[in-house]
Amino acid sequence: MPMHVGGLQLFEKPEGAGPDYIREMYESMRGTDEVAPLFLKHPHRSVKTGAQLVWRPDEQFDMEHHVRHSALPAPGRYRELFELCSRLHSTRLAWERPLWEAHVIEGLADGKVAMYTKIHHALVDGVSAMRLMQSVLSTDAEERGMLAPWALHSRPQRKPVDPAASSLPEVPVAALRTALGVASEAAGMPGALVRTLSKGVRNQTSAVSFYAPRTIFNQSISGARRFAADDWPIERLKAIAKASGTTINDVVLAMCAGAMRTYLLELGALPDDPMVAMVPVGLNAKQSQVASAEGGNAIGSVMVQLATDLGDPAERLDRIHLSMRDGKEALSSMTQTQILAMSALGQAPAILAPLLRMQGIVRPPYNLIISNVPGPRTTHYWNGAKLTGTYPLSIPINGMALNITCTSYDGQMGFGLTGCRRTVPHLQRLLTHLDDEVANLEKAVGVG
Amino acid sequence: MPMHVGGLQLFEKPEGAGPDYIREMYESMRGTDEVAPLFLKHPHRSVKTGAQLVWRPDEQFDMEHHVRHSALPAPGRYRELFELCSRLHSTRLAWERPLWEAHVIEGLADGKVAMYTKIHHALVDGVSAMRLMQSVLSTDAEERGMLAPWALHSRPQRKPVDPAASSLPEVPVAALRTALGVASEAAGMPGALVRTLSKGVRNQTSAVSFYAPRTIFNQSISGARRFAADDWPIERLKAIAKASGTTINDVVLAMCAGAMRTYLLELGALPDDPMVAMVPVGLNAKQSQVASAEGGNAIGSVMVQLATDLGDPAERLDRIHLSMRDGKEALSSMTQTQILAMSALGQAPAILAPLLRMQGIVRPPYNLIISNVPGPRTTHYWNGAKLTGTYPLSIPINGMALNITCTSYDGQMGFGLTGCRRTVPHLQRLLTHLDDEVANLEKAVGVG
Repeated sequence: MPMHVGGLQLFEKPEGAGPDYIREMYESMRGTDEVAPLFLKHPHRSVKTGAQLVWRPDEQFDMEHHVRHSALPAPGRYRELFELCSRLHSTRLAWERPLWEAHVIEGLADGKVAMYTKIHHALVDGVSAMRLMQSVLSTDAEERGMLAPWALHSRPQRKPVDPAASSLPEVPVAALRTALGVASEAAGMPGALVRTLSKGVRNQTSAVSFYAPRTIFNQSISGARRFAADDWPIERLKAIAKASGTTINDVVLAMCAGAMRTYLLELGALPDDPMVAMVPVGLNAKQSQVASAEGGNAIGSVMVQLATDLGDPAERLDRIHLSMRDGKEALSSMTQTQILAMSALGQAPAILAPLLRMQGIVRPPYNLIISNVPGPRTTHYWNGAKLTGTYPLSIPINGMALNITCTSYDGQMGFGLTGCRRTVPHLQRLLTHLDDEVANLEKAVGVG
Repeated sequence: MPMHVGGLQLFEKPEGAGPDYIREMYESMRGTDEVAPLFLKHPHRSVKTGAQLVWRPDEQFDMEHHVRHSALPAPGRYRELFELCSRLHSTRLAWERPLWEAHVIEGLADGKVAMYTKIHHALVDGVSAMRLMQSVLSTDAEERGMLAPWALHSRPQRKPVDPAASSLPEVPVAALRTALGVASEAAGMPGALVRTLSKGVRNQTSAVSFYAPRTIFNQSISGARRFAADDWPIERLKAIAKASGTTINDVVLAMCAGAMRTYLLELGALPDDPMVAMVPVGLNAKQSQVASAEGGNAIGSVMVQLATDLGDPAERLDRIHLSMRDGKEALSSMTQTQILAMSALGQAPAILAPLLRMQGIVRPPYNLIISNVPGPRTTHYWNGAKLTGTYPLSIPINGMALNITCTSYDGQMGFGLTGCRRTVPHLQRLLTHLDDEVANLEKAVGVG
């Protein structure tokens, strides 16, 4: 199963760009002299370390293997771009090399340059990966001589978008083993966590309770992916939130809930019970410390009921708002073990699912993961090329065939939908449904 | 390690082809109504059959996953095409689907259409794969309504280029297990074969003797590939053969030998001893029966000394001619077990290498495989598109980092070079060296 996160970025060529602009951009990225250590190391199974995986620098680093130049077939619509990204996101990274790739893509009919990057989950999580890509951008359209994201910055680096981006932690070996699927299924998962989780799944009244219906998303998946993406003005989302007394994040969840309701109704596959999304949320300082000490990300999770059983968009938004509030309250009252258990559930469901099954728990703990990661609010450039949109590609896993990741940038909210090619048919329809849902919500709360 | 064979075909658009010709060609191929059973089945590990792999039809066959539309970045040289083919040839086929892919590629500066196909070795060997692709072509430039290679032919099929192409045998489970690397290393290799081989490797005077020097090609390889291809007029090769009293196949081997000598000299890596190529040759009826009964291909192998220690092209050609003659004589005097052992050596070196090592044999039995597969002699078409060239992509394996496969078509000899991306640097240089070597040979035998 591919275990990498990806990102799609769209750039507008600077004024006066020649016909070879994209090739030159590719060659400049490929021509990076010194590569940062994170992008040079690869996993290696050493005899000395008792056949455990360790990081080792790639002695025969081959830049051309990692940075590639691709093109879209005519007519170069976004449909062709998503199809190429789906394909690139479906192939596994080779272990004998550093676990990343970047593709500079030409051939979009609107003249934009696309860049798709992928990086293994063992190196950075999705949020850090996006921030890493953004950390090399500038707000200055005139700046030139800018380096690629994988270049070693010899001069003092500009203040990154987020402090986390510049100090990517070494991943503990246990996390690596898990992410690469090397260990046995139960490896590295302490019994206390499993018991806590299992109690939560059984007991609806506990703080970590969840009770999700079965859906078509919650089945075994294949290795191939489908990807689609689009964005909507944050101003529209903000107006809906304001009129309904909710948050932008609630509106994002309501858009997803409404779109999925329509999508599943069309397929005749809408469950009677409301669907449940796992939504990563930032932890406060004390909670962060707990999670980080165990090698997890400093992110907790809330189980949000998506109210997909309700037909009215305003009611749905309201219910989501309440469920989110309850979830956050529950999170703040959790014990350290409970927070870890919730975090583990999002990080390693492929490992947890069999464990839960062994204990007779057969319902999915949640139906899908919806993340919303804040990004830069102002326009950014790479050597004069204006970044016009940025969309995350995430990791569907067994039992969770659809993943929605949103990120804000320059007044737009970008949605990246990554699904299993086989389990989630016609993924692009969800884009239409998302668009309809913004209008539905506007109408329902009276701002349309 | 990827275990698939590939083919690159180049087509010239028919006169009057519109701007959407390639898309329409792709759509027509993708639109195949009924797919032949060979292209519908995938390997499945069944509980019922004791966890053995069996073939099973793909109930959710998804044509778009198998037939794809790709494009080359500008300037659309053959360099960009080879780079794309290298990439496509490096990715593994997904087991949960039928084990093949076809890519219709646009963007060549000369306006040609390229088609790259890949198919798992467990379904067909390289020779059969190429013949399968050719079997749907027509010698009639005006014929239309022709089907894709993977279509089920409901009407009586035209006489295939080779009878083998129409009746692809079911692959025995043992062969499948081997090809998919599922079995333990020693699986399915009878002790008698191993002993025969091991005796041959030790004993230079035996009929199956071989004694190859170590070269840069004979080391562990990575999963990534480099591919390059070109062709030369058979008339030129024939003239060299005629003037020197050798065969066209000898000239092909001498071209490879001379090109590799130059390539390795440039790298300062030419071994003192002459390199040895394993060259598959057709077996006579009696020999074929032996090989086929055991599930192998009806192909024997000759170990040819490539005389890479000699500086003079004419002397090298002469020595190769003699070595080939000796090898064929040795083949005809071999016992059935010896033929099988030779055949196994070519089919499954990844399995054999550890076995030989266990017995203290550390030298490579040969340095590379050079195959020469005859193809059609006349011009062929697909729905009016003229096939202008056809080049095989083969499977480099651990310890054999370079593979040269040649195929003749319409008066040209096409060379397909497939190498490990990491172990064989600057693979494209071999094309220049091959070209120089034709001229060198012409001069040396006095026909230039």
